[in-house]
This record gives sequence, C-alpha cells and structure tokens, in this order.
Amino acid sequence: MATITDLKEASGTQNSGDILLPDFPKGPLCVYRKKASFNWKEMAVFLEGKELLQYKNGIFSALENDPLFARHHGEDITQEKHRELTFLRCKRLFEYEFLNMEDLIVNPLKLMILLQCLGMYDWSLFLKYILHHQNFKNIIEGAGSERHKELLRQVDNMEIFGCFALTELSHGTNTKAIRTTARYDTSTQEFVINTPDFEAAKFWIGNMGKNATHAVLYAQLYTPDGKCHGLHTFLVQIRDTKTLLPMPGVMVGDIGKKLGQNGLDNGFAMFHNVKIPKENLLSRTGGVTVEGVYTNSFKDPKHRFSASLAAFSAARISVVQMSVANLKLALPIAIRFSATRHQFGPTDDEEIPVLEYQMQQWRLLPYLAATYALDHFVKTLFMNFVEFKIGVAMKEKRRKAELGRELHALAAAGKPLASWTAQQAAQECREACGGHGYLSMNRLGDIRNDNDPNCTYEGDNNVLLQQTSNYLLNWVTVKHQDKAPIESPFGTVNFLDDYHYIVSQKFTASSAEDCMNSSVPLAAYKWLVCYLLQESDLKVNQKKQSGCSDFEARNNSQVYYCRSLAMAFIEHTVLQRYHDYTHAPTTPSTLQPVLKQLSALYGLWSLSKHMAVLYQGGYILGEEPARFIQNAILELCTKLKDDAVALVDVIAPPDFILNSPIGRSDGELYKNLWSTVLQGNEVLQRPSWWAEFCTNKPIVGRLRSRL
Amino acid sequence: MATITDLKEASGTQNSGDILLPDFPKGPLCVYRKKASFNWKEMAVFLEGKELLQYKNGIFSALENDPLFARHHGEDITQEKHRELTFLRCKRLFEYEFLNMEDLIVNPLKLMILLQCLGMYDWSLFLKYILHHQNFKNIIEGAGSERHKELLRQVDNMEIFGCFALTELSHGTNTKAIRTTARYDTSTQEFVINTPDFEAAKFWIGNMGKNATHAVLYAQLYTPDGKCHGLHTFLVQIRDTKTLLPMPGVMVGDIGKKLGQNGLDNGFAMFHNVKIPKENLLSRTGGVTVEGVYTNSFKDPKHRFSASLAAFSAARISVVQMSVANLKLALPIAIRFSATRHQFGPTDDEEIPVLEYQMQQWRLLPYLAATYALDHFVKTLFMNFVEFKIGVAMKEKRRKAELGRELHALAAAGKPLASWTAQQAAQECREACGGHGYLSMNRLGDIRNDNDPNCTYEGDNNVLLQQTSNYLLNWVTVKHQDKAPIESPFGTVNFLDDYHYIVSQKFTASSAEDCMNSSVPLAAYKWLVCYLLQESDLKVNQKKQSGCSDFEARNNSQVYYCRSLAMAFIEHTVLQRYHDYTHAPTTPSTLQPVLKQLSALYGLWSLSKHMAVLYQGGYILGEEPARFIQNAILELCTKLKDDAVALVDVIAPPDFILNSPIGRSDGELYKNLWSTVLQGNEVLQRPSWWAEFCTNKPIVGRLRSRL
Repeated sequence: MATITDLKEASGTQNSGDILLPDFPKGPLCVYRKKASFNWKEMAVFLEGKELLQYKNGIFSALENDPLFARHHGEDITQEKHRELTFLRCKRLFEYEFLNMEDLIVNPLKLMILLQCLGMYDWSLFLKYILHHQNFKNIIEGAGSERHKELLRQVDNMEIFGCFALTELSHGTNTKAIRTTARYDTSTQEFVINTPDFEAAKFWIGNMGKNATHAVLYAQLYTPDGKCHGLHTFLVQIRDTKTLLPMPGVMVGDIGKKLGQNGLDNGFAMFHNVKIPKENLLSRTGGVTVEGVYTNSFKDPKHRFSASLAAFSAARISVVQMSVANLKLALPIAIRFSATRHQFGPTDDEEIPVLEYQMQQWRLLPYLAATYALDHFVKTLFMNFVEFKIGVAMKEKRRKAELGRELHALAAAGKPLASWTAQQAAQECREACGGHGYLSMNRLGDIRNDNDPNCTYEGDNNVLLQQTSNYLLNWVTVKHQDKAPIESPFGTVNFLDDYHYIVSQKFTASSAEDCMNSSVPLAAYKWLVCYLLQESDLKVNQKKQSGCSDFEARNNSQVYYCRSLAMAFIEHTVLQRYHDYTHAPTTPSTLQPVLKQLSALYGLWSLSKHMAVLYQGGYILGEEPARFIQNAILELCTKLKDDAVALVDVIAPPDFILNSPIGRSDGELYKNLWSTVLQGNEVLQRPSWWAEFCTNKPIVGRLRSRL
Repeated sequence: MATITDLKEASGTQNSGDILLPDFPKGPLCVYRKKASFNWKEMAVFLEGKELLQYKNGIFSALENDPLFARHHGEDITQEKHRELTFLRCKRLFEYEFLNMEDLIVNPLKLMILLQCLGMYDWSLFLKYILHHQNFKNIIEGAGSERHKELLRQVDNMEIFGCFALTELSHGTNTKAIRTTARYDTSTQEFVINTPDFEAAKFWIGNMGKNATHAVLYAQLYTPDGKCHGLHTFLVQIRDTKTLLPMPGVMVGDIGKKLGQNGLDNGFAMFHNVKIPKENLLSRTGGVTVEGVYTNSFKDPKHRFSASLAAFSAARISVVQMSVANLKLALPIAIRFSATRHQFGPTDDEEIPVLEYQMQQWRLLPYLAATYALDHFVKTLFMNFVEFKIGVAMKEKRRKAELGRELHALAAAGKPLASWTAQQAAQECREACGGHGYLSMNRLGDIRNDNDPNCTYEGDNNVLLQQTSNYLLNWVTVKHQDKAPIESPFGTVNFLDDYHYIVSQKFTASSAEDCMNSSVPLAAYKWLVCYLLQESDLKVNQKKQSGCSDFEARNNSQVYYCRSLAMAFIEHTVLQRYHDYTHAPTTPSTLQPVLKQLSALYGLWSLSKHMAVLYQGGYILGEEPARFIQNAILELCTKLKDDAVALVDVIAPPDFILNSPIGRSDGELYKNLWSTVLQGNEVLQRPSWWAEFCTNKPIVGRLRSRL
C-alpha cells in the first residue's frame, strides 16, 4: 500500500512541517523501543497507507484542539452532564463533517477509520452520532421516495434527530415476536400506532432516552381486514422539534444507568393511538393502497423480512471494528505498563520489568497478535461488504444472493469472535496491570464496560453463531444431495471441497521449530472445521432420527458441535487471511519477520483452545504435538516481547485519545499516575461529613437487642 | 447438621410466628418451583443449620428495616455521597454489633456469615468495616502489649479509625521492596518515618482516602548504625481525631474513582519526618532497645517476615468467601431471569423460557454447581483456619508449622480459583441476561466490578498460584531425597503417596452414564495432579540443568506446568471435599440425588478444561472418553434445569439484599424492571440542555476546512 516516498515523509526525514508520525518522547520505554526488530513508522505506513494516516491525524487533532472535547480527569461527572457533553460533542461533529459522501466514494475505508477514531475517544459519542447518521438515516434513504429527500436534509442538518426502534422490553433477539402495532385506517389514510402493554414498550433504543425527535419504528402492519402482514418500518415523530417535549400519545423516557456507554441516552417509548400519514411506511417493497389493500413485491413474507434486515450485516461489521478498536486501546495500556512496571528480579536488589516474565508475555502477547490479525480481518470484511453493495447496485441478482449469504455467515461469526476477544483481552489487561488497572483513570474498566454490549447488541453472540453453523451445515446438505455446491464468492468455504481428504489428514510437524509458521495451525484449522462439520451434521441428523423436531435437533446440537464449528470456521478465516497477508511477496521484507511471528502466534494460540478436539478426532496423538505447540507459543512470546512496545506504538492512538496515565507513550508510569491523582477533585480535602466522625460517636451495641 | 425439628420450624409447619424460611410469593417462577426434586427449605437448613439461618435473617432484616440502608434506585449518587453513606452505615454497624467475641468463640462460622451478609448488601461497606475491625485491629492485638489495650478500646468505640498500609505506588506484590523508612533516633527514643519519594507513597490503602486517623504502616526499620532490618509494622497517626485534618508531616489523600467499590475511600500518603514513639513498633518478635540495638527472636529474617505475613492466609480465605458470596448473587439473578424470560420456541406462536435451551443451561448451571461446591469448600477451609489458630494457641510447634504450610497452599490457590470463577460467572450471567443484564439496576455489573479486585488484592492470582505449586514441588523434592514426606494435617496431599501408581492409571468409564458420578472426575483429577506434578518437576529441573538460575527456572515453568498444577490441585481438593460431603451417609436421602448431580457436574465441567492434558498424558485415548464426559455434562444440565430455581432459592439473599429487578423472587421480571425504570431520576423529563438542540443548530461542515 505504501510507497518509499510515503515512508520518508512519514518518518519526517524530509524535514517537512507535515510529519505524519512524530517520534515518541524519550523516556523509560526507549529501552524496548531500541530493541525492536523493525521501524514502527514503516509498519504504520504499510498497514494504513499515508492517506488514511493523515485522515486519522486530522480527526484526532481536531478533537484534541477543541476545548469541548477536553478530558475531565478526576471530576465526578453526573449522568446528566455526561449526556449533555455527549450531545454537544455530537452536534460539533456535524460542524466538522469528517466524512461526506464524496470522501466515502473515493475511499470507503474512511468510514471504518472514522468509527475507530471517534470510538477511541468515547464510544457513547460515536454511537450517538452513528445511530442518527447511519442506522436511522439509511433506513429512510432505503425507502427512497421523493418525499423522503426533504427528511434526509433535516437529518443532515440536525433539524430532527433519529433513533432506530426495534427492541421491546420483552423481545429483542426474536424480532418476529415484536408486538407494537400499526393499523391502517382507510377513513383518514393513516396508520395508528399502539403499544399493546408495557411489555411491548420499545426499550433500549439508543438516542430515544432524551434526544430523538423521530423514530424508525418496527411494528406489525395490520390492514383493515384485521390481517397482520408482519414487521414493517414506520417513521414516527416522538418529540416536538421546538421543545423536545413528547408528542401527544407518546410516553417516552430514559431507561437509566448502564454498565457503560452512559453518555448515550438509551430510552423506552409507549404509543397510544399515535397517528402517522400513510407515507410514513418506509418500504420499497411492501405497501398499502389507499383502500387498505396490502401489496408486496416479495411472495414469501420471510424473504421480505430477511431483505429488510440485510442492513444488519453492516452493523455487525461495525461491531467487529469497535471490538478491534477496543483491543487497540487495551493492549497499548497493558504493554506499556508491563514494560515500565518493575517487580521482583533475579536478586533482591534488581527488579525487572514485568514484561520480562514468561507468564506476563503469555497473558498479553497472544492478544496483541489477535489485535493485528483481527484488524486485518475487519478491513477485508468491510471490503467484502463494499463489494456486496456494489453487487446490489449492479443488480447482479444471483451473485448478490451468494455474496449476501457468505457475508452474513462471516459477519455473524466475526462479531462474536471479535467482541469476545476484546472482552477477554480487556479483562486480562486489567488484571495484568494489577491494582493500577483497577483505577478508573487508567481506562481499562471503561474499555471493558463499553465493549461489553458488543457481545449482545446486533444479535446475541451465541445466537449469531447458529447462523454461521447453519450456513456451513447447509453446505453439507447441498453436497449430499449432489447439487452444485454453494458458491463462495469470497472463497472462505472453498477448501471444504476437499472435505474428505482433509478429514483424513494428520498433524505432521516434528518439532516446536516446525510449528512456528502459521501454515501449521492453518492446516490444523482446516482439519478442525471439516471434522466439526462432519460431527455437527451427524449430531443434528441423529437428533432428528431419534424423533426430535428441527427446532430441538438444532438447539441440542449447539454445545460442543455447531457452536464450536462456527468459532473454528471464523478463526480459520481470520488466520487464512492474515497468513496470506503476512506471507505475500508485497509485504516488505523488513516487516515480514515480525508479522509472520504474529500470524503464527495468533494461529497457535487460537488453535490451542481446540487441542482436546484435535486429540479426540485423532488429528494429533501422544505427548509431543501438544508440547510442540505449547513450546512454539512460548518461544514466539519470547521473540515478540522485545517488539511488543513498538507493535503497540503502531496501533495506539495519541495520548490524548488513549487517555490512560499508565499507558502514555512517554512511559513515565508513576509520574503520570501521580499527577493525575493529584488533579482529582478535593483529593486532599477532608470529607464534608467529617463532623459525623469526629463528634457523633456510635454507642457500641446500642441496637444489638433489636436483633 | 439439622434436626427434624429444625426443619419443621423452618418450613413453618408448627405455625409459629418465628418462621425461618418464609414461602416465596406466587408468580411466574412457580412453574419451576413445582418441578423441583427436593424441598428448598430442607436444603437450606441442611446446608446452614438453624442457628446460622437465624443469625443471617437477623442481619438481613436489621438492614432492611433501617432507613439508613435504604436502596437508592435510579438516583445518580456522587462519589462523595456514596462515601458518606458508606461511612454512616459503617458507624451504624458498631451500634448493631452483629458479632462480638463471645459469639465468635461459640460459633466461629458466624464471622463468615457476617462477611457474606454485609458484602451481599454492599462490598464497600463490608470492606470499610472489616479493614478497621479486623485487618487493622488484629495487627495491634497481635503486638499484644499492655499499652495497646487502650488502643483496642478506641478501635472498638470508633474513637480512632484504622487502615492497613502496606502497598506503595511502585510496589505491591513484591512486599520486600517496600521503601518507606522508619529510622530509630536514640536521642528522642522515637522512630522517624519518611517516604523517600512519591513512588514510595503508600497507595491503594482502604480507608486512608478520607477517613482513617491511624495506620498500621509497613516500613523498613533502620537502626542508628544505618543497618536495615527489613519490613516492620508501626502504628502511625495520620489524621487528627478531632478534625480529620492531616497530622503534621503527613500528606494524605484519595486516589480517586475505581472500577467498583466506590463507597470505600482508598487513599495514598507520604511521610516527611513524622515522629512516633518507640512503642509504636508493633512487634512481638523483633524490637529495638532504648539504645537502638535490634533484637529479634527469629534467627533468619526470612522467618520473621513469613511470620509477620501469616495473617494473610486469613485474608485470602475471606476473599474466597467474598467470591462465593458474589456467586450467590449472580446466579440467582441469571437463573430467575432465564426461567421467566421467554424467547423463540418450537412454533412461531409459542415461546419457551430461555432456561429450556441447552446452551443457556450449559452456560449457567456449571457455575451454579461451582457455587455449591465452593461454598462447601470455603466453610471447610475456614474451619481448617480455626484449627490452625487453636494449634497456635496450644503452642503445638511442629504441627503448627505443618498446618500453616498446608493452609497457606490451600488459601493461595483457593483465592485464584474462587475469584476467577466468580469473575467468569458474573460475566457469563451478564451476557446470559442480554441487554437487561447490562442495565445497572440489575446489579450484574456491580457484582462483576466489585468482584474484580478479588483477583488482585491479597496477592495477585498468578503470583499466588506459584506458592501452591512450590509447596507441591517441595513435596516431590523431599520424597526424592528419601526424607519423611511432608505431613498433611488436612489430608489434601496424602493421595500423592500413591503417586507412581496413580500416574499409571487410565480412564475406565465406558459410557456417559458411567461418568455421572463425581468419583469419575475425582479419579481423573488425582491422575492430573500427579501427572502435572511430575511434568512440572521435570521442567524445572531441565531448566536448571540447562543453566537457568532458580529464579529463571521457576518463572519459565509456570505456563502450562506449575500454574496448571496449582489449579488442578485446588480443583481436586474442592471436588474431593464436595464429593465426600454429598456422598456421606449423614446427607439426607431426599437431598442426595440433586447434591450428587451438582458434585458430578462441577467435577466434570472443571475437568473438561483439562481435557487436552488428559489426552496428552495418555489418561484418555480416542473419541469416546471426551464424548462421554461431554454427554454427561449435558445430561446433568438437563436433569438440573428443573431444580435450578429451587437451588438458587436456597442460596439467594432476600430481595432487598439481592437488589435486582430481574432477579426478584416473585419472578415478575418485566413488572419489576418497568417499575424500577419509572422510579428513576427525571426519567420522563426533557433534558436540561433541550434548547441547545432546539434552537442552536450546527452549521454543517463549518469546521471542515480546519482539518
């Protein structure tokens, strides 16, 4: 991606004022930085390219230079204040307009960079902005009528503010069971929106709590004949744009404090005979005539439903990117801390950085490798999505369906893999930083808390994995029926054509040294996916033959079978893509050694969680293979520990964005921590309740008799 | 433990006013309660005994009936307010005096019950109370001089308030590297306390932030000859008791917001020539003469150090109990939610409770089994501690050392096992409750955040595990040297005498049915511990022979070896004790079936994480054993799911204490959630910043040119 000129400019060797990647301040991290086997600037330019680095820098410095985005260390900000700040910052984003349609067409990856930059600053802000600017807007855009053009103008100018209202108090994952109704009234040519009872209140809706004036509302469409035509989307105004007070018939409010993302106002709403014009049905495909007759371009309502939910793949890819961004926050903090925190040593007098301990390396470096591998994966997945969208635009019908299905399978398993990896990494980083990791100011708690919903929204992780295993099981069924196998436009299931051959393979490496290339775990993963596919298929069919319904058979084949299959498949895909990338001839020879080590470490470490299955299915046998793999993992950790600081320098955002005293790029761990503590609110003051201690003494045991 | 009369009274069949265990309100949970295979009241009485149940009820109702302990739903409480409330509640605990010395002597388990009850209400409160009342007080008591009796009176009356000040900004785990100094000045017969620089500031000290007037301070003792005699404890006044202002020469403050436990004021302190009388050296064993000569009853300073840290075993057992209490909060919430939340079903019209899904059972029920097993374990571990304390009192020197070492090994691994189990369970419960699990009011976030430091304080989990593996490796060394093997007063390592025989064993079960008794995982664990012990010993020795120092050899044998060994050993101990308990003839036959299932599920599920090692070492071979174990786990989940609600009814605290709308015992999931949401602060009000939206519109792209 990068040219030599790119690199020279990046490193500032041309001495231009426009230095893309300034040097880090000298300090305790220099020891490790000097040991690095590669030039971190070359790596950054290779991974992102100059244009995107510049784009990133632009966003980051705009935020850093704007007092509205100043960090509030040690202040005890109320939820109301957090919401207000988030709103004001969101409004400011309209003024910055970091990305417009033209930018996006020229380089679609800018969308992913914007997501990452804003989210790294604050996930609440990013979500508030994107829920309005993408999720809400895209649905209206999708409806595509002339009338909606005016609406889009209002969206872009923030004249109205939107939310996406699907989930209800008692239903989320099972969207078909949504109970809000929209009944068509022929006499007035309006839809009448009703919430049957509070269990069907819209709930959890981002932006609805305090701010949204309009909702894209999912409701069951009823025609005057009393027939239900399933879930449709409607545009419903919920608050007055002049006062932010609720519209008549709408009860709307805030669901309260969450574990994280508290700058975002999640809300609820109930509707009582709220009337909206017929045109507010947002649909390209289904509609109602003036007389109340339902018309539909889809024959099967299931297809219409699937089509209306196609947007979800995009949302899931965003969640993968959000998770990767969280990894890029957590790992720099933990690794810079580990490189500067000294504890114990070979003698009582000499202490060594905790990064020198094999245990600490083993806890952190595999997650660093995962960050690199998943970062590459999400870029390719996003480009798959762009390809799909182009396919849609080209109206390539058959290919579009194939692309859509494969993309769906990848996004549905990519989200669980990425969000869980980030969840576990944040937890491990928190623990690896000991007590200091538990201080709010160091941000690992916020990263964990803000990442947590990535496991839940846009489809519960465990439920989503079923979608991917269903896709793979379908491949087997089709194959058994001797139909043409599923086409795999992105190539992720092509290897399954060698299914029978692969299942008969064995592990062949004969030393730890042999295993230190990602081709070894890659081959093992191919076997693993085929084996789990075979076993899952067997299991589902056994269940069916023993009299289970389809529903039961699928549900009782998830644990140890379909779920493992989906995870193994997506890990294989991530590894395959990263292996290809790191081994490509276009990858600079200066960077290849460390990148290949990352690829091998990610592959082996992921694979090691499936070791029991490798034994169980006979792919490996005896003591040696597991030892080889374990020794290779530890050896790779040893090799990578001297590169670890440089590797996080490549992915970490600037200090202002990272916002963690123990993770600052100057490595002055204790100075940063200490000065941030002293900036806290009334740190050295006695408490307001001091007299309650000093004069009002308890009478010990006074209340004991009451027990 | 319980008699028939106990049970009758407990169930209220005698119609007395004094009903120990009132019935739960009728509601949606009845479906599952009716399906239970056992009487939950019988189980509660069997597990706790009538006396402790009564004691628990007394504490719980005192808190519920006292307005000072009222819950503040939906209020956005500031940190200052949270601290104040916690302080006031702590003071009130002195008035309730739930436990005095006489109670404790009659039934020491009351201490564990008190810990659990207060912690289940709020961990900050419990910690604030116990840091003063146990950690601080015990050290002063341990010094045992006449002069300190007056101090103890002041502690008991809250005239002074204490903290335990060991950790410094740059040192925690490596206590020997603590740098605060106490220099004896012969001229004034005082110690002069100094903090060499801010990196040696005391840091993280609970109660020090705002409240403590006195600290038990760890500092390096220097005699006038300039010699350092290592870490000693000193009593140092840090704040004036009349004003709560700092004492001269003391800079003391609050370290700020943490991920959880924010009612507790963790603090820092620096000392500048702070003078304390000679008598404030708290030591039974080491001291300084008037002339400044160091005297010591221990020859080896290492021994003195170990002795002074003996109190840590007690603290670690408390952390095990804290973790178990968190399990007893998280599981009831998630299981009651799962029993009342309906989603999807065999047909579109009929939805089933999510607890009916095998996946949900597999995610939650093993943690329920772990809760029961660990609850039993911590009781026995605490009684081991009591036995040790009696041994100390009896001055049984040899036995005391053996008891102490074994207790240390058990507590050092018990804490990691329990705290990680609770951490993972809280996370799984959060995810298993979907979005609603992410709402603060449902408490799973607080449970997770408050549990988190259990992995860190009283010794980092990974560091502690080394202590246990060292204990076991020492056993091998002693055995090789043909000395008398280590005595195991609590019997946890006795099975190692059959070491060679056990290592040669194989898995023998020939069906899933066969595996459904905990004797199967128990036998496998015995093999696992012996195998890992053999391999770890080999590994350490190989490293040494290849030229590694002891320090390196140990450090590079943790991953995959010593760490796994310590975990396997403690899991074996927990399982052995729970197996014996559930299979004892004294266990009522009405309860035995479900208890045995819990024991089997805990054993198999824990074991399944080591499956790869079982294959690797040749204990199991081929596809069948893993399948048997997996099928047995799933079968046990199916059997236990109808008992799950009754099982959490046994361990859950009253609704007021549990404090989770989705976890209330009436099972009215949505009603509870909805009414709590509506109680929130300004839920339905428009935001204070409404005009910023309604009138001040952004000029789109205005700032774009700046980029």
